[in-house]
Amino acid sequence: MLPQWIIEKKRDGAELSGEELRFLIQGFTAGSIPDYQMAAFAMAVYFNGMTPRETAALTLEMMNSGDVIDPATLPGIKADKHSTGGIGDKTSLILAPLAAACGLTVPMISGRGLGITGGTLDKLEAIPGYRTNLSEKEFFQTLENVGCSITGQTAQLAPADKKLYALRDVTGTVPSIPLITASIMSKKLAEGLDTLVLDVKWGKGAFMKTIEQARELATAMVEVGTQMGKKVRALITDMNTPLGRAAGNALEVQECLEVLRGGGPDDLRELTVELTAHMLDLSNVRKTRDEIFQCLENGAALKKFEAMVSAQGGSTDWKFSEAKIQEPLLAPADGIVTAVDAERIGKGCLVLGAGRQKTDDSVDHAVGIAQMKKPGETVKKGDPLAVIFSNDWKKMDESFPMFGKSFELGDSFEPSPFVCEVIGGELI
Amino acid sequence: MLPQWIIEKKRDGAELSGEELRFLIQGFTAGSIPDYQMAAFAMAVYFNGMTPRETAALTLEMMNSGDVIDPATLPGIKADKHSTGGIGDKTSLILAPLAAACGLTVPMISGRGLGITGGTLDKLEAIPGYRTNLSEKEFFQTLENVGCSITGQTAQLAPADKKLYALRDVTGTVPSIPLITASIMSKKLAEGLDTLVLDVKWGKGAFMKTIEQARELATAMVEVGTQMGKKVRALITDMNTPLGRAAGNALEVQECLEVLRGGGPDDLRELTVELTAHMLDLSNVRKTRDEIFQCLENGAALKKFEAMVSAQGGSTDWKFSEAKIQEPLLAPADGIVTAVDAERIGKGCLVLGAGRQKTDDSVDHAVGIAQMKKPGETVKKGDPLAVIFSNDWKKMDESFPMFGKSFELGDSFEPSPFVCEVIGGELI
Repeated sequence: MLPQWIIEKKRDGAELSGEELRFLIQGFTAGSIPDYQMAAFAMAVYFNGMTPRETAALTLEMMNSGDVIDPATLPGIKADKHSTGGIGDKTSLILAPLAAACGLTVPMISGRGLGITGGTLDKLEAIPGYRTNLSEKEFFQTLENVGCSITGQTAQLAPADKKLYALRDVTGTVPSIPLITASIMSKKLAEGLDTLVLDVKWGKGAFMKTIEQARELATAMVEVGTQMGKKVRALITDMNTPLGRAAGNALEVQECLEVLRGGGPDDLRELTVELTAHMLDLSNVRKTRDEIFQCLENGAALKKFEAMVSAQGGSTDWKFSEAKIQEPLLAPADGIVTAVDAERIGKGCLVLGAGRQKTDDSVDHAVGIAQMKKPGETVKKGDPLAVIFSNDWKKMDESFPMFGKSFELGDSFEPSPFVCEVIGGELI
Repeated sequence: MLPQWIIEKKRDGAELSGEELRFLIQGFTAGSIPDYQMAAFAMAVYFNGMTPRETAALTLEMMNSGDVIDPATLPGIKADKHSTGGIGDKTSLILAPLAAACGLTVPMISGRGLGITGGTLDKLEAIPGYRTNLSEKEFFQTLENVGCSITGQTAQLAPADKKLYALRDVTGTVPSIPLITASIMSKKLAEGLDTLVLDVKWGKGAFMKTIEQARELATAMVEVGTQMGKKVRALITDMNTPLGRAAGNALEVQECLEVLRGGGPDDLRELTVELTAHMLDLSNVRKTRDEIFQCLENGAALKKFEAMVSAQGGSTDWKFSEAKIQEPLLAPADGIVTAVDAERIGKGCLVLGAGRQKTDDSVDHAVGIAQMKKPGETVKKGDPLAVIFSNDWKKMDESFPMFGKSFELGDSFEPSPFVCEVIGGELI
């Protein structure tokens, strides 16, 4: 077997066998198949796609390129959630302790963000001392003692994905449904899960710009998970507007604490409860939304969060580094907020330094935007639409008009549901 | 500008600018753009093609990646022919001296064959002492003194093409019309030509299996040449049957000598005269086919050939290494030869060692097939259909049935024209 035969077969639209995909991924991981052959292969996949069987085989090989957690070594029902990402999407920080408080074990291996705001790990690292580089032993101990742990991908977890993702990033082969599916699912399934809920976002602030694309990705991921014997369900959710009122790492952790104390923005709390409800339903744990919300109100979830942060070396006095400059963005007129453009908000945050333009950029945890008005809320001219946090006047000046253009004012607003569809299950 | 932006633009079907292609090819040649980005780009071109303007810009950049011969430094009208290759295609060895005898200057930079039989350089190297690695100075001197010279591509000629071709070979991106066009034309136009005739072959023994594919390639090459201010014309010719009666390096040189002495197989002589007639017509040199043929009959072309071979260190006593084993292939029945499968003949020659399976394989100049019966000729059972030349009994035994299956016998035969179409001109 020669790698170019496999490339040619995919180029010509034929279905690859499990054996061919194993040869390709094993060779790529070991270094015997060079980057240039893998890049040509990825581009051929971009154009010709993959059948569900091929995607499942690719996922399996990428998962098996590294360590796979043995489910038997973890207590309870292992459940996780993965989001395809969006502006202000901080549900993981609330959901992991909340689901743990409801009785699940949540072994969450997360990533860093590239572009726009930071990823889950960047947000958690805004907590002084929080370690995202747990050893497997430390990860297991936290899970046993707390019921949830959020840490980073070790070098041993799906190394083929790590290598392939870096290559896709510079070869124009990121937006391919089967490659995205294999990338996400190989890492998630290596966690030894029983159940997985996917939050597939569509809209201006999401990777998938249309609901159709989100549906396609959600379907592919649910199919692969199901083929691999896992219970997987996907929620397709709206990401045209930022989630919650804050975007930026430390600002988002503070908002999470509000929700964990029973308050916080409605949309963030409701989506987190919704995702947790699906995790519990899929795991056959019967709890109503009210019962789940109780775990926020009665402090049970906050307790889990504090226990997790402590176990991972973080300080629970909830003191965060503060931005030197804090400027309100004022409403130019009276009106109802009709839209907040998530993509523009994200790009503004990127300018402030809340995210990364290149993989090795550092992130400024203090900067971002908070106290954002939400669609449907009424403002008077001169009222603050939001507050911008920066450590640099130049970046403030550059981002300020971007944030300004994000807010649209009008006369009326019609709300739309934030959960649009459920794939692999039903609205519960 | 980032290379991935250019890859993405091509992936999404947009037209690249000359500036973008320059950035890409210059970076690739210099090594600042890695192979993996170029491989992804080539696959995107495979799928989305290129406009004539893009193909011309790509060709220009690949040509300019190395030395370009200054036309003013060469005497007379500079004309060349390029063939896309076929079994028994040896016209270059006759055509270069023939066109020189008719008054043109023919600076022919040729290649080696990969697969099937050898390329023009391999054939010439069957002549003891013939040097295909002339310096530019030696090349120019031969052209000045003789009027024609056939030599190999130096490292300074279109290095981007050399690098890209090696990459395409292992990434499934060879069969792309714009990439083939840029590869061929960048090298040919670096010769500082005034006129170029292309022999684009289709059929069983050609790279292009259908006349439609050949027409597409021919059109792309003529368009690029024309856009670059050259007179270019393409003949689409039939390559279902081997050209002439011999395939294999030394055997083909001997057949060329027959034609250069006014004899040889009709099809080979006629196609060579035809191609030369188009070269002269395109170069505004008025000569009839009869006058061209005279240059073969009166020894003028042979004289040029001998002068070129001598100038390049070759022996003109026309002694060639002979194969140890020579076996006739006998007709299994009475009949008319209705077809000789060029692809099977080529594969048989490859087994004998006349061509290369890998780039660094060596070629056995003595082996091959000769005295092939042509379609339309009548044989009796037991008559030789051809003679097979081998230096190894095992290879002889392996190839023999392949040659046997190449000849079809029947009751009647309807000849078809070997020049099918002319692109960029008319049948003359």
